[in-house]
Amino acid sequence: MKAIAVQPGAGIPEIVERPVPEPAPGEALVRIHRVGVDGTDYEVIEGSHGGVPDGDERLVLGHEAVGIVEDANGTALEEGQYVVPTVRRPPADVETNDYFERGEPDMAPEGEYVERGIVGAHGYMAEYITSPADTLVPIPADLAEWGFLVEPISITEKALEHMYATRSAFDWQPESALVLGNGSLGLLTVAMFTTTLDYDRVYCLGQRDRPDPSIDIIERLGATYIDSRETPLSEIPAAYEPMDIVYEATGYAKHAFESVDALAPNGVAALLGVPADWSFEIDGGRLHRELVLHNKAIVGSVNSNRDHFEAAVDTLAALPKEVFETITTGIYGLEAVDHAFPKATTTVPAGHGSTTVPDDDTTIKTAVEFTGI
Amino acid sequence: MKAIAVQPGAGIPEIVERPVPEPAPGEALVRIHRVGVDGTDYEVIEGSHGGVPDGDERLVLGHEAVGIVEDANGTALEEGQYVVPTVRRPPADVETNDYFERGEPDMAPEGEYVERGIVGAHGYMAEYITSPADTLVPIPADLAEWGFLVEPISITEKALEHMYATRSAFDWQPESALVLGNGSLGLLTVAMFTTTLDYDRVYCLGQRDRPDPSIDIIERLGATYIDSRETPLSEIPAAYEPMDIVYEATGYAKHAFESVDALAPNGVAALLGVPADWSFEIDGGRLHRELVLHNKAIVGSVNSNRDHFEAAVDTLAALPKEVFETITTGIYGLEAVDHAFPKATTTVPAGHGSTTVPDDDTTIKTAVEFTGI
Repeated sequence: MKAIAVQPGAGIPEIVERPVPEPAPGEALVRIHRVGVDGTDYEVIEGSHGGVPDGDERLVLGHEAVGIVEDANGTALEEGQYVVPTVRRPPADVETNDYFERGEPDMAPEGEYVERGIVGAHGYMAEYITSPADTLVPIPADLAEWGFLVEPISITEKALEHMYATRSAFDWQPESALVLGNGSLGLLTVAMFTTTLDYDRVYCLGQRDRPDPSIDIIERLGATYIDSRETPLSEIPAAYEPMDIVYEATGYAKHAFESVDALAPNGVAALLGVPADWSFEIDGGRLHRELVLHNKAIVGSVNSNRDHFEAAVDTLAALPKEVFETITTGIYGLEAVDHAFPKATTTVPAGHGSTTVPDDDTTIKTAVEFTGI
Repeated sequence: MKAIAVQPGAGIPEIVERPVPEPAPGEALVRIHRVGVDGTDYEVIEGSHGGVPDGDERLVLGHEAVGIVEDANGTALEEGQYVVPTVRRPPADVETNDYFERGEPDMAPEGEYVERGIVGAHGYMAEYITSPADTLVPIPADLAEWGFLVEPISITEKALEHMYATRSAFDWQPESALVLGNGSLGLLTVAMFTTTLDYDRVYCLGQRDRPDPSIDIIERLGATYIDSRETPLSEIPAAYEPMDIVYEATGYAKHAFESVDALAPNGVAALLGVPADWSFEIDGGRLHRELVLHNKAIVGSVNSNRDHFEAAVDTLAALPKEVFETITTGIYGLEAVDHAFPKATTTVPAGHGSTTVPDDDTTIKTAVEFTGI
């Protein structure tokens, strides 16, 4: 079968031949429909995050997948059922650990997990995958074409659960939310705040010029677009209003700290990005004081567990399809797979012939299609 | 009656004459037994925090009080009952607001409250005070001598409630806690972690040389003293262990950020201090990434509500009395009131005759006694 693999830091993704995997007891065989591409994939391609399984040179990419059960292999799944696989698995040398036993692999520290398509385990960009039945979350057939969005939505489901938990010791009635970043995760989150969470006032911070499809969808959702070149994060409370929630999906490290200023009293900032080292000056005294005197909180959130995937399937059903159509700027078959990675501009070492498609600034989210529905 | 008042920023506390207050309907008259002195009092004295009520020149100090009901004035309180008053009240121009209605004045933003003895309302360093009956928390007579410690303990009760809330979205089993600061609040919190909360491993960061009574009590409680001059906060995980909880009670702004490094995965840092502005460089990229990839949280916490005071009375009953005796290095009557403020080194403007007692480094906590039990 064909798969899409990368040698992290040494090239752009390429099509490789792999044997069709055999499901072990308790696993099902899944025929992959579509797999989304996100910022983490680019970090893996560049070699700045993640890594190949021990003994391998290449990593099969992909962690945002949807497929159809081809062989239930005696599990409770039904053949022909569409499913979305979760991402974390126990490390190669152990069968399970406390985090997986509790259904909370998203809370496992480094070393206690691998992530399919990211670190230590091959991903889902292949014609077939196998996975334990309890890691395959059913999704209705009529949503399957957008099933590759379940994983990113599950990331926000988890962040929301943790944000609300931080504020659960008192009567908190949030009305305003600011999403930092108008990439696909930011836009899905804006849609969740305006639609399923029914916030009164939702804002999205970005850096794009009009006309732009992401600005259009922000405004069609009833949210307000804020251009960070005109209104920096820390000036948003004065220009608009202080925010009950700030949701950071930029990976821009200064946002973690400027968020404190953007919050309303008793507000919470969720951090989702994974920036590289970067030293800069802050007024740490003021930020510390502000956190204390206004009971503010910051919560980091990574990955998601099966409960969040299940919530994400419900959210996917509730969001307007128009959002998915706008966000998904391209779905490419294997014959055009380079177009699915328009931002993979890694310099290709001599001897590795590949093409690099420049980022044309119209791409929001792409996916690779292995089999049609 | 006699009271202890200060002109913020212009002198050290002095004894003033005030009329005995008359309880309004719903209020009781309380004869004050003791009032503790803490870091906030020094900030008020220096004029760096808080402020006098409109129209006044001086503020009666004191927010950590215990007294006896002298006139219940038709309320449900009993005369002769010992009580501890809470600190926040509605602003002078309103009777109540949503925060007070909900019993959560501790979550009110600036402008929506005054604080007795700190900002906008006179405090408890007086022979008599009046207060609404529902702001007076009963305390058993046999604990009354230590009742001035209920307010600081309530501060930690609130911080703990919020810390645990931030971690309530998953199965969290904290075992290690690090308290930053071996002042009275830090030491009370160490005692809570080792005694009422029964943590396996408790650490306290300070800057004192042995022999020192605060180090002695830390060790008698079964906790580990860490000298920050030998082991800075960010090196504690390597030298000791990463911490499930970091509780900051130093007001040292860098601690807010270094705490992220000191935390174990899924840990939470509570910030309690109120530092002044201070700009410095941090590796914001690394801290942001660390918060995200290890699901860490930071929560600011200020003040406390009646529920926290009630919990604090139970905690006071459960903690070893030895802790209170060690922490309380001096209780002074009005004739020796200067000794209750050994750190009040404000330069006294010409014309204001007062003494300044230098900080001899043996003081942990003092209290003023107005009437014996």
